[in-house]
Amino acid sequence: MHKWLLPEYIEDLLPPTALRMENLRRGILNLFRVHGYELVTPPLIEYIESLLTGAGGDLDLKTFKLVDQITGKTMGVRADITPQVARIDSHLLNRQGVTRLCYAGSVLHTLPDGTNRSRELMQLGAELYGHSSFEADVEIQKLMLNSLKIAGINDLHLDIGHAGVFRGLLSYANIDEALVPALFAALQAKDITTIRELTSHLDNQVQDAFCALTRLYGGVEVLEEAFRVLPSQLDISQALEELKAITNELKGDANINIDLAELRGYHYHSGVIFAVYHQNHPVPLAQGGRYDEVGISFGRARPATGFSMDLREIATRFWRAPGAKPILAPYAKNAKLHEKIAELRNAGEIVIADLPGHEDTQHEYECDRIITQEPDGSWVVKPRA
Amino acid sequence: MHKWLLPEYIEDLLPPTALRMENLRRGILNLFRVHGYELVTPPLIEYIESLLTGAGGDLDLKTFKLVDQITGKTMGVRADITPQVARIDSHLLNRQGVTRLCYAGSVLHTLPDGTNRSRELMQLGAELYGHSSFEADVEIQKLMLNSLKIAGINDLHLDIGHAGVFRGLLSYANIDEALVPALFAALQAKDITTIRELTSHLDNQVQDAFCALTRLYGGVEVLEEAFRVLPSQLDISQALEELKAITNELKGDANINIDLAELRGYHYHSGVIFAVYHQNHPVPLAQGGRYDEVGISFGRARPATGFSMDLREIATRFWRAPGAKPILAPYAKNAKLHEKIAELRNAGEIVIADLPGHEDTQHEYECDRIITQEPDGSWVVKPRA
Repeated sequence: MHKWLLPEYIEDLLPPTALRMENLRRGILNLFRVHGYELVTPPLIEYIESLLTGAGGDLDLKTFKLVDQITGKTMGVRADITPQVARIDSHLLNRQGVTRLCYAGSVLHTLPDGTNRSRELMQLGAELYGHSSFEADVEIQKLMLNSLKIAGINDLHLDIGHAGVFRGLLSYANIDEALVPALFAALQAKDITTIRELTSHLDNQVQDAFCALTRLYGGVEVLEEAFRVLPSQLDISQALEELKAITNELKGDANINIDLAELRGYHYHSGVIFAVYHQNHPVPLAQGGRYDEVGISFGRARPATGFSMDLREIATRFWRAPGAKPILAPYAKNAKLHEKIAELRNAGEIVIADLPGHEDTQHEYECDRIITQEPDGSWVVKPRA
Repeated sequence: MHKWLLPEYIEDLLPPTALRMENLRRGILNLFRVHGYELVTPPLIEYIESLLTGAGGDLDLKTFKLVDQITGKTMGVRADITPQVARIDSHLLNRQGVTRLCYAGSVLHTLPDGTNRSRELMQLGAELYGHSSFEADVEIQKLMLNSLKIAGINDLHLDIGHAGVFRGLLSYANIDEALVPALFAALQAKDITTIRELTSHLDNQVQDAFCALTRLYGGVEVLEEAFRVLPSQLDISQALEELKAITNELKGDANINIDLAELRGYHYHSGVIFAVYHQNHPVPLAQGGRYDEVGISFGRARPATGFSMDLREIATRFWRAPGAKPILAPYAKNAKLHEKIAELRNAGEIVIADLPGHEDTQHEYECDRIITQEPDGSWVVKPRA
């Protein structure tokens, strides 16, 4: 085996892509900062019980396991930072009121999420704890959309659903818990025949409501249709009212698409669920939702809403031209030259101070300018021949 | 077990320490950038053979092992980024001339390096390939010292040694390879009795030279002493000349300490070896050296010199006061208020836009200023009561 071969779905980021990711990280973390989101940096590894707390069961399979040589216990390399941040909010900071946190860090998945995905992600996200009403969901979604705009990605499509609609219907119809996974799968597949079969023992109105979910997809007018065709059960009405309030506030920020059969993350999401798409890209660029139950396992239930994105994906797939090329400076022990170099660097220019004895490979430098000495002894920047 | 307990020597970075590390990262990567160092981001995991290539054997024990579910092969979580960057230089970029690369990323160690160390490091470093002479070592060491100055750490002590001195002596004395580890250990322990025993079958002059190494410690005047007491063998003379040239260029940048028995990393270092200390801190803040052989295993031998540091250690141990406190803005649908908030955020201020319905916990916000409306309808920033 060649020693330079990397595992499948694992890649280096080379120049200038690595710099693009770094700049994206800075721009978006700056945006979070001026909105009052405080940066936290949870560890790359934890005991597996902590890492999987409050998360869906699929996270277990995604998580690489390690043995702690100090205790012999099983640790995992995090596959998602969200539960770690929930742990910090509920246990470490222990505030009672609204808490805004953000993070950026590497996560690993045992297998890629799709054929063009990496097993290593640079997960960046923001979480808002302690506020259970729609205004917090609006703040988080605006922040998510503005993060992508900072990345230079406009023309965004925002898909919004709500876990409360499906939950409300299950409760209204008094569905047997054993039936839920099959019904859930049929809904995700928009498979009306199976939905009819699974609900054949129920009222026609309930059957129709489950089938209707698969059609409740489209612009904000879908919400009016949903109010008409779904039962006026409390959870359902509340979910629809929340969606109405949220979409009303976000209509200027993105193209909005309602999808009431969208139940990604239903197992841990409790309210609104959302994802942002761009037409040139098959997978969501960012996604999130409300998951009010997440803190319970850490000893303190707190309302929570947030989103995350993979900066590696964005830096790799959405290309932007790199910045200015470097300036080449000669190797010389000359105080005035060193002053000139320092001045240019302070102004943000890249200055490569040449080293002696390799004139034959200087063409490899991508410099488009060079520092040369004028007859009067001063040093000036000129275009490189 | 409590679900919020972290493994030993694994920690969260909370506000404001996490932000301090982020700011250090940015400041130092900016410094690297304007010096022409290009950022690369190698992956967190690789096949174990690649990760350990060109590195000392102790890296194997430090490396967490994982099973690749796609191939069944053993992968490792990197315990050092340096070999990865050497792989990128020698195999991926494939340039012939001088190449400057830098990186910043998480690494894990199976066990901590000391009782106050973390098993998770934020390794940040710079590497200069393709130049075998002392000018490159000077550039790298100046960059290292300036990195620490950016972190606000002055009064630095630079320890410098050279692998060529010990190697030259071994070659001059024609020492049996089997004897080297014991001799190496005795030198590190400055244990003269054992050095005498191990070298008793050799010339007195050689015995004296090995013993002298343990005393060749102190200011730059040590070099003159070394020229006198060590044999004038080619490798040794060349090493001493290099040290003389380097310390001559660096004498204005740090307090310099020569240590010719300092052989940390002797197994892979080939030339100058250095470490920076601060009097208030027991372990080096940054360290590095020349390791010209590192590229061979990747198919291409290239001169290489570089350094690295643990930003986590520095952000945690060297405290600095956090920046300005946030401004609190009321929740109101008022275009002029939103303009005011945007203007403050564009100027870098942190503005927390309050959310409705939690007035009883507002005291938790650390805001020292508040946005209020004047009788004429305008919005202004005032001190918070």
